[in-house]
Amino acid sequence: APGSVLPVNGLRILPEVADALAAGRPVVALESTIIAHGLPRPDNLRIAREIEGRVRAAGAVPATIAVVHGRPSIGLDAETLEFVAGSREVLKAGIRDLAPVAARGGHAATTVGATAHLAYQAGIRVFATGGLGGVHRQARDSWDESADLVALTGCGLTVVCSGVKSILDVGATLERLESLNVTVLGFGTHAFPGFYLADSGHRLEWRVDTADEVADVVRAHEALGLGRSAVVVANPVPRGDQMDPGLHDRVLERALAALADSGVRGKAVTPFLLEFFHRETRGASLAANIALILGNADLAARIARALTIT
Amino acid sequence: APGSVLPVNGLRILPEVADALAAGRPVVALESTIIAHGLPRPDNLRIAREIEGRVRAAGAVPATIAVVHGRPSIGLDAETLEFVAGSREVLKAGIRDLAPVAARGGHAATTVGATAHLAYQAGIRVFATGGLGGVHRQARDSWDESADLVALTGCGLTVVCSGVKSILDVGATLERLESLNVTVLGFGTHAFPGFYLADSGHRLEWRVDTADEVADVVRAHEALGLGRSAVVVANPVPRGDQMDPGLHDRVLERALAALADSGVRGKAVTPFLLEFFHRETRGASLAANIALILGNADLAARIARALTIT
Amino acid sequence: APGSVLPVNGLRILPEVADALAAGRPVVALESTIIAHGLPRPDNLRIAREIEGRVRAAGAVPATIAVVHGRPSIGLDAETLEFVAGSREVLKAGIRDLAPVAARGGHAATTVGATAHLAYQAGIRVFATGGLGGVHRQARDSWDESADLVALTGCGLTVVCSGVKSILDVGATLERLESLNVTVLGFGTHAFPGFYLADSGHRLEWRVDTADEVADVVRAHEALGLGRSAVVVANPVPRGDQMDPGLHDRVLERALAALADSGVRGKAVTPFLLEFFHRETRGASLAANIALILGNADLAARIARALTIT
Ligand SMILES: [Mn+2]
Ligand SMILES: [Mn+2]
Ligand SMILES: [Mn+2]
Repeated sequence: APGSVLPVNGLRILPEVADALAAGRPVVALESTIIAHGLPRPDNLRIAREIEGRVRAAGAVPATIAVVHGRPSIGLDAETLEFVAGSREVLKAGIRDLAPVAARGGHAATTVGATAHLAYQAGIRVFATGGLGGVHRQARDSWDESADLVALTGCGLTVVCSGVKSILDVGATLERLESLNVTVLGFGTHAFPGFYLADSGHRLEWRVDTADEVADVVRAHEALGLGRSAVVVANPVPRGDQMDPGLHDRVLERALAALADSGVRGKAVTPFLLEFFHRETRGASLAANIALILGNADLAARIARALTIT
Repeated sequence: APGSVLPVNGLRILPEVADALAAGRPVVALESTIIAHGLPRPDNLRIAREIEGRVRAAGAVPATIAVVHGRPSIGLDAETLEFVAGSREVLKAGIRDLAPVAARGGHAATTVGATAHLAYQAGIRVFATGGLGGVHRQARDSWDESADLVALTGCGLTVVCSGVKSILDVGATLERLESLNVTVLGFGTHAFPGFYLADSGHRLEWRVDTADEVADVVRAHEALGLGRSAVVVANPVPRGDQMDPGLHDRVLERALAALADSGVRGKAVTPFLLEFFHRETRGASLAANIALILGNADLAARIARALTIT
Repeated sequence: APGSVLPVNGLRILPEVADALAAGRPVVALESTIIAHGLPRPDNLRIAREIEGRVRAAGAVPATIAVVHGRPSIGLDAETLEFVAGSREVLKAGIRDLAPVAARGGHAATTVGATAHLAYQAGIRVFATGGLGGVHRQARDSWDESADLVALTGCGLTVVCSGVKSILDVGATLERLESLNVTVLGFGTHAFPGFYLADSGHRLEWRVDTADEVADVVRAHEALGLGRSAVVVANPVPRGDQMDPGLHDRVLERALAALADSGVRGKAVTPFLLEFFHRETRGASLAANIALILGNADLAARIARALTIT
């Protein structure tokens, strides 16, 4: 029946997604934090649909992930997507929040880490997002490092992103990924992307140029007994869609100052800074954000397709 | 025969505990470091028995864990408990010390991490302790972070504690727990407990109010494929039993200064500071310490019972 | 046929090694980074052969590990060893580089972490190297910590080394090993070795004095459910072969200054500093380096033999 669901080890999997997984057809996981907490309303719902459409256009089935009425849901029907985009009751859940939210029957958008975990549990092999969490600039004192990083060591899928948000300590984040033995591939570049900017100023050792090349690395990764750990594909925002670098740097400086003044902490930091950027750049950061996530959705779908060829 | 034991994959399990585990009856693991190195003698033996008694009174079987004559022992008979409380030959073993102690036939009290590991190996689902180890205040320079934290990521049981000892950097410890994706639930509170004090000044996102609620979260945790990682239940010392906060802060400041002067390092740090507190507060910290561990034993037993209901 | 290989889950295993593993005879893994990037040419080839010879002389089969033509190779025939020692095309691969190198059919010497991973996948139980990677001296700011450390938590073999290179922050590295629950045993000493020096100035809790004693600890480690994590055996360079401590400290200071001036970063740091030492000590550091790796090869072979006795 339409809207019905298939329970698989605690997960609610949308029939279209379950069918694709059963048949070995390409599926791309998408996170919901960007929808519920990363983009301004009401545009967020339209953009969420556009992201899913981009996955479809590239030949894969989108599976947006969120917790709804306590059920981790792999793929959202139209009504549920609307609910996640519109409700004020939708929390933000990392991996460690999944069980409390589920136990009380709550709703939550999922972070990169939580989405990766649930997608991996569901058997999805590719995940598209905007930017990874990372080491915060004050982490020397605060110890604030995103749970996404350790999460990547236990979720064996390919994560397509545009680097980490520039509000973080990018260099320290790259070092942590190295310490955690997480493979990072630059897509079409040796420059680690800077989220709103194509180049963060940090170099990557490994460059790949096609989805097939990514699939080859993923297959080698699994054959080598590394399949419990993620492969990160760092895909820059198209040059034409990036923010003006000078504007970016000026706004970033002011955003960090505003953050320090605000007393905002923990999970509220990233939404605060994204909103500051959106407001102060009069939408230029938002345009870049949308362009990069659409690009990542497209690339993820192509990688998912390449992985279905054996 | 009385005192006989059942060997299970290298572990010596007391028959009463083995029977309870086989029958699916509630069992609570208890650590021995508090007995051998955390409480003054000869009171420690009496208190150890009181802790076990509190578990029994709440309807569960206590399993105090230690390494005796090289054998990791899950549940100690009366004579062995007396030995652990009284002998000067009982070392302090973290996870990484278990094999060396076992190989040479030595004796050791087990830390939170080592107790959690052995309890998990034995199939015990709930563990009561005083306070977790954590990030030390000088960790920016020394890199000194308790092995308990990473241990929690590989031991899938429920750990009931009263926060972390206030001699640590509590905020950094909470951040590390977040980075490691460890779920932390406040019991009856959104305030993270401060060991001797009910409130450390740090907030928790998740509050639960009953043992049944904890059990619901644990079942969701396992259903979501997170069962290899611990769930921490942070249970404050009863308000009436906490130390006077002003006294606490004054003694803490002096204790840290004394530690810096003493040159004491590594595993000896926590016993040094606990003893300083006991001495300088004329027993007020000891009273709080006993009250909190008894409270945790009681709550752990109630959670273990709630988990047996399916 | 001579030079033929046996494919085992993506690995190419030299027949002599495969036969020994199948028959339960002792095998010692050896890393190739020291050959390709750690020792000056053309001495490196001779020394690589000497290391293998030392393993054989002590009764075990050597398995030098590298990636050749994209295939992770466990044991190298004479021709391949010569290629790894002589080619300029041989990269340096940590665990996260294995899949990219394999996917493009490249060549790479393997770091401690990558060698440990591949050896563990192949079923080898003992590995001899020079020094572990660790926490860098600037890690407070740079977050630069070797991927070897976390790698040890997922590779359940015995790693024989002479501590960590003195260019690192040795104390912080030991703390990190403790936080990660990695067992460290001093061989014949309670002093943690200082690579070129027998004593780094840091104490170890556990001392063992024979290969049989190490094997007892390893068997206890496995019986206790800790078999996914490595046991580190820290074996000092023989006192007679160590560098003059005064010379060591003077050169170290200058080497660190030269590093800061050079702008060298990442994977190139260790080769830069080793070469600086070799040049400035007129070979004294090289002599110590060779002596310690030969000693470790010998001890590893004796441990591998002790482990075959059940
Ligand atoms: Mn954070
Ligand atoms: Mn410590
Ligand atoms: Mn590094």
